[in-house]
Amino acid sequence: MRIDGRPMRTIWVGADGWSVEIIDQTKLPHLFEVAALRSMEDAARAISHMAVRGAPLIGATAAYGVALAMREDASDASLERAVAVLGATRPTAVNLHWALNDMKACLGAASPSDRLDLAYDRAAQICDEDVETCRLIGAHGLEIIRALAEKKDGAPVNILTHCNAGWLACIDWGTATSPIYQAHHEGIPVHVWVDETRPRNQGAFLTAFELGQEGVPHTIIVDNAGGHLMQKGKVDFCIVGTDRTTASGDVANKIGTYLKALAAADNGVPFYVALPHSTIDWSLEDGLRDIPIEERDGREVTAMAGRIPGGEVVEVDIAAPGSPAANYGFDVTPARLVSGFVTERGLCDASREGLLSLYPERAREAS
Amino acid sequence: MRIDGRPMRTIWVGADGWSVEIIDQTKLPHLFEVAALRSMEDAARAISHMAVRGAPLIGATAAYGVALAMREDASDASLERAVAVLGATRPTAVNLHWALNDMKACLGAASPSDRLDLAYDRAAQICDEDVETCRLIGAHGLEIIRALAEKKDGAPVNILTHCNAGWLACIDWGTATSPIYQAHHEGIPVHVWVDETRPRNQGAFLTAFELGQEGVPHTIIVDNAGGHLMQKGKVDFCIVGTDRTTASGDVANKIGTYLKALAAADNGVPFYVALPHSTIDWSLEDGLRDIPIEERDGREVTAMAGRIPGGEVVEVDIAAPGSPAANYGFDVTPARLVSGFVTERGLCDASREGLLSLYPERAREAS
Repeated sequence: MRIDGRPMRTIWVGADGWSVEIIDQTKLPHLFEVAALRSMEDAARAISHMAVRGAPLIGATAAYGVALAMREDASDASLERAVAVLGATRPTAVNLHWALNDMKACLGAASPSDRLDLAYDRAAQICDEDVETCRLIGAHGLEIIRALAEKKDGAPVNILTHCNAGWLACIDWGTATSPIYQAHHEGIPVHVWVDETRPRNQGAFLTAFELGQEGVPHTIIVDNAGGHLMQKGKVDFCIVGTDRTTASGDVANKIGTYLKALAAADNGVPFYVALPHSTIDWSLEDGLRDIPIEERDGREVTAMAGRIPGGEVVEVDIAAPGSPAANYGFDVTPARLVSGFVTERGLCDASREGLLSLYPERAREAS
Repeated sequence: MRIDGRPMRTIWVGADGWSVEIIDQTKLPHLFEVAALRSMEDAARAISHMAVRGAPLIGATAAYGVALAMREDASDASLERAVAVLGATRPTAVNLHWALNDMKACLGAASPSDRLDLAYDRAAQICDEDVETCRLIGAHGLEIIRALAEKKDGAPVNILTHCNAGWLACIDWGTATSPIYQAHHEGIPVHVWVDETRPRNQGAFLTAFELGQEGVPHTIIVDNAGGHLMQKGKVDFCIVGTDRTTASGDVANKIGTYLKALAAADNGVPFYVALPHSTIDWSLEDGLRDIPIEERDGREVTAMAGRIPGGEVVEVDIAAPGSPAANYGFDVTPARLVSGFVTERGLCDASREGLLSLYPERAREAS
């Protein structure tokens, strides 16, 4: 997608042919800054300090981190060390370990002298594969938007999304945003209601930023507003991402997703979840019972970073002094509230049968 | 209720016997400051600048504003002028006009020489009546909490509330908070989940502040979190206030209330609305169709005031630059999602029949 009109990905190899460049997402939306990663340690820091975030992007950064390690030393020991250091950056990111295992298997089988080129090639391939997965999710989701647009007689299709399941979390396109971008590129009029997504404001900070850069009409709303908008017929379609989906179709996603799904069901608004197959946890059945919900620092609730006039970013306290806060990262939306899934293989019901119709090869795991 | 251990109301006559003192609520929770109103104009400014807010407190401040006007000039012209100036401070506050009409009728019938004492007496009476109304709401709501406590075997009753329907919006006790304070005073263990209530943060700023000052255990959460807490059995009871209630029991309240009511219904959590009879609009039937929802400045969504270290309060931008925001003040919770009303006359169903069982004298208006 575009930044200042120029097509970009979230990670790429620099003009020198070897350093790895990223958008420093800790600075967004207050500042757009590219950072260069010149060592495996740089890559590890970028992940742990959240200069890159979003499961696919974390995986890609780790893959390039291995490549940077091979540049300094392509020995078995260096490979082992890179996988260990990069693997310790974010404890719960599934894609991180998947990417590192992939790199290890790929490079471990090669002779050290071949590893450098192989590492850069494989990292680039991991990125390209993610782009293609997201593009396909968009192509399938586009069908839903196109059908809605036909009923709207030229009026914009109003789409509500929560958090950031956008290209900034991936390499390009995003998951939930991919159908939106593809509709916009095709000239279908769309308008996105962007939940600000407290407490970390990924909606107001990242989703609004990327939609704005791509020229997609959008409006930021507080997380409280979506129900009212649906009651008033101002939402045609909801689409969100997911951090983990059970084999039965329950969806863990950013805290507050469940409330929007309830409102969508109460108002007959289609509620879709966009997901690459990698987020399906075939070993889990009941999302509410089985998916552990991360509790984070209450300070994320009681303080917020923002720009003061002049551009400086400061943190301010936004709660009664001394009052404690609790901070749950995710909630689980039961499959019964999900109209369907949008995956790289197509659309399906939010159910075991639906998922297996697209991924029949997982039937044994999901039983 | 108490501030720093000392019992207070939100408005009172100062030690000099005539000036009117208020808590400057624009400074809360960052600073606790008492302001003295020494003229009708001071009172008008306090209302229009929101140093006082909440329908009952606005009405009481206007009543004292008339008393201050009578101190300077007790003529008919002065009375007319006070009612006009004070009535123009906040366009939509029902209690404001009710209080002013009441003062006008009361003073207009008296001779100018009697008006000063009469004005202070009637203003004090308006305050006392509100305190008694809120106390009664608390006494009736306490029954619900007491019954829940019996089932909890000594564990705290977990109560979720949205926005500030607390004593800071009234004279004392509050509406939704009154049962909570009375339970706490009676020694029933309670714990309150306080929705921060974006965009104006009345929960994190005001409700958390007043609960903290009264010693009531509470935890601030983002508005996104309530559904998850209910799914996990961590909420026994929801109680909120209302700005306007229809004769059929639909409830307009702070934006986001509807989402919590949906989650409560989905999880079998009782969802009550506390209200004095003055918020019932007997002329309205269908809340979704008939209650106009105020749209406010989007800047309330994209900017936020908070304390920086050192205590200074600054406003920071908290959204992608250039992204527009929409800001709806209220939403409507349909009666079907409300377990019951808690009024100064007792508990009733959220329905025409329920309301008329407590207010039979309104049968003709409500038909």
